[in-house]
Parts: sequence; structure tokens; C-alpha cells
Amino acid sequence: MRGRGNGGGGEGEGAPATVVTPSAEFPPLDRAELGALRSIGEQWQVPSDGPPPAPNRLPLDPTLERTRAEPAPGRFGRLAPIAMFRAGEPGELVATEPANAPSTRAGQALFRCRRALFGPPLTSAAVFYERMRKLVALPVLSSDLLSSVAYGPEAMLAVLVLAGSTALGLSLPLAAVLAVLMVAVGLSYRQTVVAYPHGAGSYVVARENLGVRPGLLAAAGLMVDYVLTVAVSVAAGVHAVTSALPGLARYTVPLGLLTIAVLLAGNLRGVRAAGNLFVWPTYAFVFALLAVLLVGYLRAGARGFEPVPPPAVPAAEGLGLLLVLRAFASGAVSMTGIEAVSNAVPVFRPPEWRNARTTLSWMIGMLVALFVGLTVLIHLNGLVPTPENTLLSQLARATFPTGPWYALVQAATALILLLAANTAFNGFPRLLFFMARAGHAPRRFLHMGDRLAFSNGLVALAVTAGAAFLAFRGRTEGLIPLYAVGVFLAFTLSQAGMVVHWRRRRSRGWRRRAAINLLGAVLSGVVLVTAAITKFTEGAFLVVVAVPLLVLTSLAIHRHYRRLHRSLALHAPPDGRRPAPPAAVAPLPGAAEPGAPAEAQELPQQVQHLVVVPVARLNRASLRALAYAASLRQPTLAVHIAPEDPEADRFREQWEAWGDHVRLETIVSPYRTAIGPLAHYLEALRISRPDVLLTVVVPEVVVRRPWHRLLHSRAEHRLRRALRALPGVVVTSLPVHLAD
Amino acid sequence: MRGRGNGGGGEGEGAPATVVTPSAEFPPLDRAELGALRSIGEQWQVPSDGPPPAPNRLPLDPTLERTRAEPAPGRFGRLAPIAMFRAGEPGELVATEPANAPSTRAGQALFRCRRALFGPPLTSAAVFYERMRKLVALPVLSSDLLSSVAYGPEAMLAVLVLAGSTALGLSLPLAAVLAVLMVAVGLSYRQTVVAYPHGAGSYVVARENLGVRPGLLAAAGLMVDYVLTVAVSVAAGVHAVTSALPGLARYTVPLGLLTIAVLLAGNLRGVRAAGNLFVWPTYAFVFALLAVLLVGYLRAGARGFEPVPPPAVPAAEGLGLLLVLRAFASGAVSMTGIEAVSNAVPVFRPPEWRNARTTLSWMIGMLVALFVGLTVLIHLNGLVPTPENTLLSQLARATFPTGPWYALVQAATALILLLAANTAFNGFPRLLFFMARAGHAPRRFLHMGDRLAFSNGLVALAVTAGAAFLAFRGRTEGLIPLYAVGVFLAFTLSQAGMVVHWRRRRSRGWRRRAAINLLGAVLSGVVLVTAAITKFTEGAFLVVVAVPLLVLTSLAIHRHYRRLHRSLALHAPPDGRRPAPPAAVAPLPGAAEPGAPAEAQELPQQVQHLVVVPVARLNRASLRALAYAASLRQPTLAVHIAPEDPEADRFREQWEAWGDHVRLETIVSPYRTAIGPLAHYLEALRISRPDVLLTVVVPEVVVRRPWHRLLHSRAEHRLRRALRALPGVVVTSLPVHLAD
Repeated sequence: MRGRGNGGGGEGEGAPATVVTPSAEFPPLDRAELGALRSIGEQWQVPSDGPPPAPNRLPLDPTLERTRAEPAPGRFGRLAPIAMFRAGEPGELVATEPANAPSTRAGQALFRCRRALFGPPLTSAAVFYERMRKLVALPVLSSDLLSSVAYGPEAMLAVLVLAGSTALGLSLPLAAVLAVLMVAVGLSYRQTVVAYPHGAGSYVVARENLGVRPGLLAAAGLMVDYVLTVAVSVAAGVHAVTSALPGLARYTVPLGLLTIAVLLAGNLRGVRAAGNLFVWPTYAFVFALLAVLLVGYLRAGARGFEPVPPPAVPAAEGLGLLLVLRAFASGAVSMTGIEAVSNAVPVFRPPEWRNARTTLSWMIGMLVALFVGLTVLIHLNGLVPTPENTLLSQLARATFPTGPWYALVQAATALILLLAANTAFNGFPRLLFFMARAGHAPRRFLHMGDRLAFSNGLVALAVTAGAAFLAFRGRTEGLIPLYAVGVFLAFTLSQAGMVVHWRRRRSRGWRRRAAINLLGAVLSGVVLVTAAITKFTEGAFLVVVAVPLLVLTSLAIHRHYRRLHRSLALHAPPDGRRPAPPAAVAPLPGAAEPGAPAEAQELPQQVQHLVVVPVARLNRASLRALAYAASLRQPTLAVHIAPEDPEADRFREQWEAWGDHVRLETIVSPYRTAIGPLAHYLEALRISRPDVLLTVVVPEVVVRRPWHRLLHSRAEHRLRRALRALPGVVVTSLPVHLAD
Repeated sequence: MRGRGNGGGGEGEGAPATVVTPSAEFPPLDRAELGALRSIGEQWQVPSDGPPPAPNRLPLDPTLERTRAEPAPGRFGRLAPIAMFRAGEPGELVATEPANAPSTRAGQALFRCRRALFGPPLTSAAVFYERMRKLVALPVLSSDLLSSVAYGPEAMLAVLVLAGSTALGLSLPLAAVLAVLMVAVGLSYRQTVVAYPHGAGSYVVARENLGVRPGLLAAAGLMVDYVLTVAVSVAAGVHAVTSALPGLARYTVPLGLLTIAVLLAGNLRGVRAAGNLFVWPTYAFVFALLAVLLVGYLRAGARGFEPVPPPAVPAAEGLGLLLVLRAFASGAVSMTGIEAVSNAVPVFRPPEWRNARTTLSWMIGMLVALFVGLTVLIHLNGLVPTPENTLLSQLARATFPTGPWYALVQAATALILLLAANTAFNGFPRLLFFMARAGHAPRRFLHMGDRLAFSNGLVALAVTAGAAFLAFRGRTEGLIPLYAVGVFLAFTLSQAGMVVHWRRRRSRGWRRRAAINLLGAVLSGVVLVTAAITKFTEGAFLVVVAVPLLVLTSLAIHRHYRRLHRSLALHAPPDGRRPAPPAAVAPLPGAAEPGAPAEAQELPQQVQHLVVVPVARLNRASLRALAYAASLRQPTLAVHIAPEDPEADRFREQWEAWGDHVRLETIVSPYRTAIGPLAHYLEALRISRPDVLLTVVVPEVVVRRPWHRLLHSRAEHRLRRALRALPGVVVTSLPVHLAD
């Protein structure tokens, strides 16, 4: 069941499945392919044309004669290309940093901009894994989870208030139920930490225990989760700012998009090294909230814990079970981020699993305390959600009517939300990396950019999150209904996978462990179904549609890579197939019986050449193409396409004046097209001898300015496109650079 | 001074300068180039590697064995490719119509659509020149000229009325001055007809007599003129329709764009054969206007030619000289189209010049009669321009208050304006053809589409005219100020050219002829300057800017083509240069002293090869590339780019397992980029031996569905782009088609 479609071998051979390496793009060959490679190599024969085996003697020094004194000046950049390489081990050159610069002028300008923005490139050797103490790990890993209390209680109350202000009292029992859910899911994840000491997210757990499709389902849920984490956190963060500074409210959308862009830029630059900087927003947020709770409860105690009656809000909907369930599902978004620790076990100091588990317990405890404490305090103060001012902002204002404390609470809230959005920028590209390694996502997500960041994944996340933010005009309450479905889908599959895990192992106490995970899975599943149904029309349908589409896309990608892998996998050539001719003669026409079809030729002695040179008119470009073709000393055919007979005759006269050195075939195209008849003629040639490999030599005029391209028919380009579909037709473009 | 930049030879050798041929894209070689070709051919030597001269014996039959009974089935279309060609003269195949179909599926669908819309392709043999009788030529050639009276008088009055309704009376003296101008310019053009019996537009006359730059200036004026003819005629035609049917007024813009699209489609289809169909709108228009004049003057006579006082319109501006000149310049647009006959002399029956001159005289006579007649009648009826209702429509309504006559006048007006717009679709592509043949316009305008129409020119005209129409929201009075400048620029240069023409010839009576043309030139020049100054702020500045820009663009295009031609022109190889080695041995490394730089190698014996195969990993694609390279039996070097040292070592092990058949060089790219270091490495190799031609063999995975492209890094594509700037680096792409 393990994915094998990554084009070159199984994943995770040797390296643990959760380790990220820059070589992942180059998977090693497996044993069978290595054997095939050997046997292909043994049959390899080059028909050499004289005493010295010419192909192995090179006309120049490929090691670039690194001892040479004076490197010649180059045309790209200030450094000569020869100086861009230094000698490595024997037979090895090492590219220096300037060698990464692109060669076109526009590309170089872009390259310089990017470097100024994101810093100089980092070598592969700079990959490092920082181990974290609990006191550092706790804030870094919990920012996503704890920041959710900034919008979770509000999301719940915003639903309840639809049934009028009297329904707000239901928030207390709902908070109790959610607290139970948090503890249950938390206990469940504690076990994942123990079972996967190398760390494992929902995708890995579900794939390993439930199979590929559930794994992809979990991955799709996670992808949606990451995108919405960015969108919701940024929306809530901007809302925290605009609650304090209402003048900024009309810039919500540009502010949010700017924030996402800054997060993207920071992550492209690679901000992991700044880990310790990330510690204080979480602590600041927690202390700020604790201060709010402390002062708030003191004030409430001073009036005997008598709830302030909320302002009368008319009921927009009846108070039914559906509404209560909707409120419950909205409140459950406070649990997003609970899985962070289980992904990141290896970053803890040893014993990793124990430290991770302790951290997780602390996080759950804080979450329950903050969530319940805030919900009750909001109730006691009789606060009601309003679009302009977040509940947390109202609460902070009620608690600290004067002094700088209110502003500090809002600032800490905005900062932790920013940090929470940033965790998605860590998780999303890693998820895509693992999916890509298994062949379920485009392989470009395997590539580490020059700052050792998965640039493609980062950009993909920023673009989709920005689109979601823009689509909902940055309204947190619009995004919340989409949020719960993806999160709890991943939770459910992850916990269900753990149940299977324990059942398979049957280690000591497995029944108890399985029971805990089963409880977690069932509770998560209930929330998932509740959220999907009650929020369907409010936007959850988008996720309900997107998740299966993502899974189908992943499967289609996997199918394509599997087919690619099958097409490109090495097989030993069957012994009977076209034994290599012992004599070193070029195969003669007529004498050779049809051999392997052109695209199956993997040994030099199998390749049967015909070089075709399309010639529109005789000039230096076409003569160079003819000379190039003839110098290959393979059978050569020139083809001229004429729009009418007189032109064809005139051309043939010129051809004879030249000396008729190459066999010429003329095609009269009375409809004045050139590319179509030429492509069809080449196909006709190919059909008449499928074992002959056609090499089409086309001169390509290279212009220096982009607008000059408009002045050329770009026949080379069009011919290449027309010939692409034809198997066994090789296109060789001979550049012609214009003299000034 | 004659343009020689068309990449292959002088224009107009043999064929007269004004004849359009499909072979224009393939100009013949001139004498010097033919000599160079011969001497290159004499030095041509292919170092053959055995007794039989292999390159001239082909492994297949290039004539496609047309006698074979059963053609194999092909993958494009229903017809097998072999059946798409029939044998022509010896060594010649003729492509049948299906061979023009593109090979991609999307291309085929488009091809079928286009065929349904524009008809089946026409062979080059279908070019024909229809000779016209005077009675047919008159309406076809005069539609542009005569249709101008539908908007000319109105344009003049629309300016005068700005000074209040009392100023309208000035239209009578202005009409008299314009009548004199028409006769003078008409006499002037009568002489062009005589002097250029093959026909010559302003561009040709100005270029031949005044030089290239004045010619281009005239061409730029004409281009603007053609574009505005379409825009103004369509705008006035739509206005004629909406005057009769006011309900359609709000669809002015879509109606006009639709009309332009229909004109484009008709011309792409090739409507020239329908010539006789074009006769009756002009006659209908002329008869309708004569009827209006007759009945109108009868009615006016009945009340003793007493002018009806116009409704009082308050003056918006003072009545100054500037206003009068503006009105004069606006009225002068009635003369657009006067040059049509001089372009088209060869379409007349012999004696062409006499028939053409007679036709021109008739046209001038009718123009003067209609223009003056209408202006006076409008004055007598006291009509004032309004935005909703054209003056002609008001006049027709006043003349024929009842009955179907009013509708007929409007219909005839709309039709002749449509025909006038159509004449621009004939003239514009021909102008661009002649400019392209001289190297002053992109060469794609030389290409006749499969319906024998200059499709590129037609599309260019429709797009620019549509843009102009859209920019002015289809308002005739907005477009008029732009119109006069381009027209009179071309008139002035053409007449001035004629003056020089007569001065050079000094044939009998040249002084009188020169004087007539001088008068025409001076009068046209006065109108040009008047129009440019008085209408500058109303839109003429657009033309004043566009014309020099067009000239500069033409000159830049010509410079580029001249450089191209210089780069590609054939030169005999200097005798001393690297004499061909007599023995048929491949040049050995070290032994060969550096020869000609790679891009100067035009003889097979000069070409020094090094084949480079970039290998990312070992699979069937890369082994095929290696086998292809080795089978060429040239020195070969494989290059592997590794992201880190361990990967490089692992790859080398695999390479040795394969048998190390090709020299391998590894480049460690610690910043994980591949294209940049590879390109720089190849450049470094090239710098170390500029005489070695590097052929880079890259496998290219061909996917069947466009979205699959997203799943590939398209390294082949990116490498090709990176290497394009490097001289002497040939890129060979080996297609790899996925199984099933």
C-alpha cells in the first residue's frame, strides 16, 4: 500500500519517514533497477570508427583546468564562469554561489531583488535541527492552540445570540462539554506522542494504520486546516487591531493581505533560526489573559458574582437543537492546533516522548483554563458579540477601563495570532513534502529553495490563504464555519488510526490505550459530523467539496507519477533482442531489418539515425544546419517546403549551384503552410520505418530584445510544438546569434 | 536608398513592384550570394568513415513509396500521413489539403472551426486578377470617396454651429473653397494615374521620389487613414441606422464592433470574388442622394429658394478665424478615398491609364456635385446638427416626410459606408505587404493565409480600428478630428513626390504637370497643417504622436532585418581559413589547433563536436539520451548535478554499476539549483575551447494532458531558455512519451 510513484525508489529507506533532506529529489535506485542497470551496461557497445575509441577522448578538459592562471572574461555577471567552480573530490566540481545566478538579464535583476529580500542562499550543509527545552517548546508549539481562545468563545456566542440574548446563558454548559472534549482529545494525542517518538502528524498516522486513501483524506483535511489557520488567525489578528483602533477597520483587507505577504517573505527568508524570538508573544498573551481573568473575577467577586444582564438582542432564529449544535461546533475551533506537539516530538530534548507528553498536558490544561475562564467571565460581564469590537477586546476594556493594559492585551492577542498563522507556514510545506515524496503531490514540493525553505509550498499556502481571506473580506465569523470540518476530519482519522495501531501491536495495556483513542475518535467524529451538517450552508460545503477534490487530485497525481515511473524504470534488455553487431560498421540501409522502435532504443548499437534538415532558403543559418547534420556522418535528408512550383524549381537550381551535397526532397504546399505538411511528412517517414530515429535539425535565430521576436515567424518554436506528439522524432535547435 | 533588408534579395526583381505573390516570403538569391554559395559548395567535405559514403544513402525512401498499396494508419486525423502527399515532379511531393491540419487536438478543433467560418483553403494557383469595366470600377473604387459626403458636411457644420446658428451660413463659402480643393487634388491625382500605369499609392510615390523616410511618413499617414476609415465609416454607418431606429442608439458600441468583426470575417474568407455584388450600394447611394437633391431643390424652388431660418442655437464660442479653419479641416474629410484609383490602375481594362483617369474625373465630378448640393440644400432647409439624428437623415426626412423613401436613403447610406470600410480592408494589408517586402514591417505580413488573404494584416486592421471605435464610444464627431491629419499627410507627400517625378523626367510639358502637382501638394499641405493645429487638442495630437512613432518603429524593424540579413548573408569562405583535411579522420583532441568559432562553422569538416548529456538520475530516459549521444560517435561527456556530497557519491556508484561507459563529471550544487550551474558550466567549457560546438542532449518527457505539465519540473524547457543566450551551444531534445 505504500506509495512508490516517486519515480525512483521507495521513500524512507534508511532515513526515518519524518526527516526532511535536500536529496529527496534524487531517490536512490532499488535493487532490481540496479541489477537491470548492470545488465544494460554489459550490453553497451559503441561502434567505433577507428583505432582510438574516439567518444571517450574529449577535445577539452571537463575539469576546467582549475590550475590555469587567468580565467577568461565571461558574459554573465562580473565573475568569469570558469571561476564559478572550484575543484571538489576527484571528478567533482563544486558550484560557488554566483553560479546560481540566471543567465538572462531579466532573470538576473529578479535574482538580485530576491536576494536583497530573502538573503543570500544557504548551502545544504546548513540544515540543522534545534532541540528545544520544554519552556521554549511550550510557547512555540502552543501558539496555534492557545491563540484560538481569541476567537473560539466569540464564535460560539455569535451563534447563540442569534436566538436572542437570553440564549447566551447556554454558553456555560457548552463550555463544560467542550472542556471534556478537549481533555479527551488531549489524552488521545498524549498516546500518539508515545507511539510515534519520531513524531507523526495525522497524515502519517492515518496512512500507516488505515491505508493510503484515509491518509490522503487526513492530508486534505490538514491542508484545508493550514490554509484556514492562516486566514482565520490573520483575520482575528487584524480584528484585534481594528477593535483597538477603529479607524483602521476599513483597511481590513489590505492589512490582512499585507500580513500574509510579510509572513510569506519571512518564511521564504527562513525564520526558523529566530525560534527564541517566538517565545515571548505566547507568554505575553497567556499572562495578559490571566491578568484579565484575575482582575475580572475580582471585580465580579466584588459584586457577589452577580451576572450583568446582557443588552436585549431580539431573536433572529428560534432556539433549537440545531442552533445549539452549531454553537458547539463553532466553539470547537478553539481546539485547532492541539496536534502540533505530536508532529514535533523530535525537537524536544531527550527523553523526547516524555518531555513532549508533559508539554502537551500543560497546553491542554492552559487551554481548558483560558477557554472556560473567559467564557464564564464574558457571561458574568453580560457581553454580546458585535461586528466592530471583538469579545476579548470588550472584556479587556471592561476589565481595564483605564491605563495602558487594554492596549497591551490587544497587542499580545494580535501577536500570538500572527505566530499561530506562522505555524501553518511551517507545517503546510512539510506536509506537501511528505506527500510529494510518496508521489501524492507535485514533485516540485520536494525542492528546497536556496534558503533551505520549501519555497513552492510556502507560496502555495500564502496564495490560497490570501484568496480565502479576500473571498470573505477578512471576516473571522465568515471563515469559522469552514474551519472546524477540516480540523476534526484530521483529528478523527488520526485517532482512528491510533486505535488500529494499538490493536495491531497488542502490547501491554493496549485495550486501555485503544479505548482512550476510540473515545477521542468518536468525539472528534461527532464534532466533524455536527460541523459539516450544521454549517453546511454557511460555507462548510466548500470544504466538503474541496476535501474529496483534493483526494481525487492526489490520486490522479499518484497515477501519473506511477505511470511515469513505469515508463522510466530500468529493465534488463531481453537477451534475444537485436544482438549487438560485432563489427564496427554503421548499419546500412536496406540491409538492416527493422529493429526496436525508436523510443525503445537504449543501447548505442540499436540507434538507427536519419538526420532531417528543413531548409526554407539558403543562407548561413541553413548552411550551418546542413554542415552540422553532415558532420554527424549519419544519413541526411534535406526538405524544402515551397508555396508554388516556380519557387520549388528556383530553389532546386540554387541547391544544384551549391553542389547538391545532401539529398533534397521538395514538398510543394499549395496552401502556403509549412509546419503542418512538414510535421505530417516526418510522421509519414516514421511510419514507413518506425525503427529509424529522426533527428530534425532546425536553426533558431536568437534575438536580443524581446520585441524582435514579433519580427520572426519562430518556425523553430512552432515546429517543435507540432513535433512534440510524435514519438521517435528528436529536435535539435542550432542557435544563430545575430552579429551587431 | 531602396530597402534591401528582407533577408534574401532585392524586391521587385522581374515582377513589377505592385504585384502581390505568395512566393514573396522566399526571395531569390542575388548574384553575389549565388557565387558565394557555389564556392562554399566546392569546399564542402564530409569525412566519411568507410568505403560507402554513408550520409547519402538513406535508411528509408523519402519519396514515401507512393506506389505502395496499403497506407498504414496514422494518429492525426482520419487520413494516414503517407496518403497526405502525392508525387509531383521528380524529387517533389505535393501536400494535399489534410496535410495542413495541425497535429495537436486543440489545434485541430480550432482548424475545423476556422474552416467552417472561412471556407476551405485555396491553393496558390487560385490567385487571379480580375479586370474591371469602368461602370464596375467606378462604384467599387469610389465607395470610400463618395460615402464621405455622409459625414463630411455634417462635420463642417458641427464646428460652425459652435459659434451659434448665425454662423451656419459660412458653410456656403467654405463649400466653394472645398470644391476648388477637390478639383485641384483630383487633377493632381489624374497625373499620378498617367505616370504610374502599374498603379502606385502614396507610399510608393513618396518613397520612389522623395526617399525612404518620406515614404514611411506617407505609409504611416496611410495606416492611420485606413484604421480611421474603418472606424469613421462604421461609426457613421451605425449612426445612419440609429438615426432611423433611435431604439438601437444604446447599442452603438456593440453594433459597431460586430460590424467590424463581420467585415474581418468576410475578408478573411476572401470576398474579392464577390466584386459585382459591391456595385449596387454605391449606385443606390448616389441615386438616393440625387433623388434627395432633386426633390429638395424642387421644394426649395417652390418657396422661391428662400432659406428656412435655422432654430436659434446659442453660441458656445466666438466666431474667429480658428473656428472657420477648424470647420474647413473637418469638411475636408469628404476627400478621403480620392487616391483609390491611383492605387488600382491595373484592375482597369486596357488602356488602363485612360480608363482609370476617366473614372477618376467622374468620381471628382460626382463628389463636388454631391458635396456642394447637399451643403446648399441643408442651408436652405435650415438644418442644424444634433447628436441623435444625422444631418443627412434630417434632410431625407424633410425631403420625404412620408413613404418608404426615407428608409431607403438611410439603408443606402449605411451600406455604402460599410463598403467604404471594406475598401480599407483591401488596402491596409496590401500596404503592409509592400512595406514588409521592403523590410519596413514585420515579415509575417508577407504571408498569405490559406484563403489567399493577408490574414495578419486583416486582423491587425480590425483590432486597431475596433480599439479606436471603442475608445471614442463610436462617436463619429469624436473620430473626425483624427482623420484629416493622416489623410492629408499622405496626399501632400504623394503630390510632392509627383513634383519631383516630373522634374526628374523632364518629359514634354513637365513644367505644367509639375505645377499642377505642386498646387495639389501645397493645398493638401495647407489642409494638413490647418488640421493638425486647429484639431490638435481635440484628438489630432494622437495622430501627430502616432505617425512619427510608426515611422520610428518601421526604421527599427528595418535595422533589425538588415542586421539579420547581414548575419545570414552568404559569403565565400576565405581560402586560407582552415583548409579541409584531406584524410577522412575525425579531428583528435589536443592535435587540433583552435579553429573557427563554433557559430562560424559552415562546412562539415570544420565542425568539432562535444556532446554533453546532463543526467539527473539513471532511468530509461537518461539512458536513452546517453545511447543517443554515444551512437553519434562523437566525444561525449555526462554531467551530474548533485545537491550534496553523499548524493554525488551514491550516483557515482550507480554510474560504475552501469559500466562507466561515458566520461562523467559531477558538479555539486550546494544551493540545490541545477539549471544555473549547468548553464555556467557549459559556458565555461565553451570559453575554454570556443571552436568546439557543444551539443546538449536532454530528454523531454511529453505528457498527454496539459495539467500534467504542472507535475514536472520541465527542466528541458528551462535549460533551453538558460542556454539560448550562449553561442555555439546546440540543444537536442529527445522526446520520451509515456506508455499507454
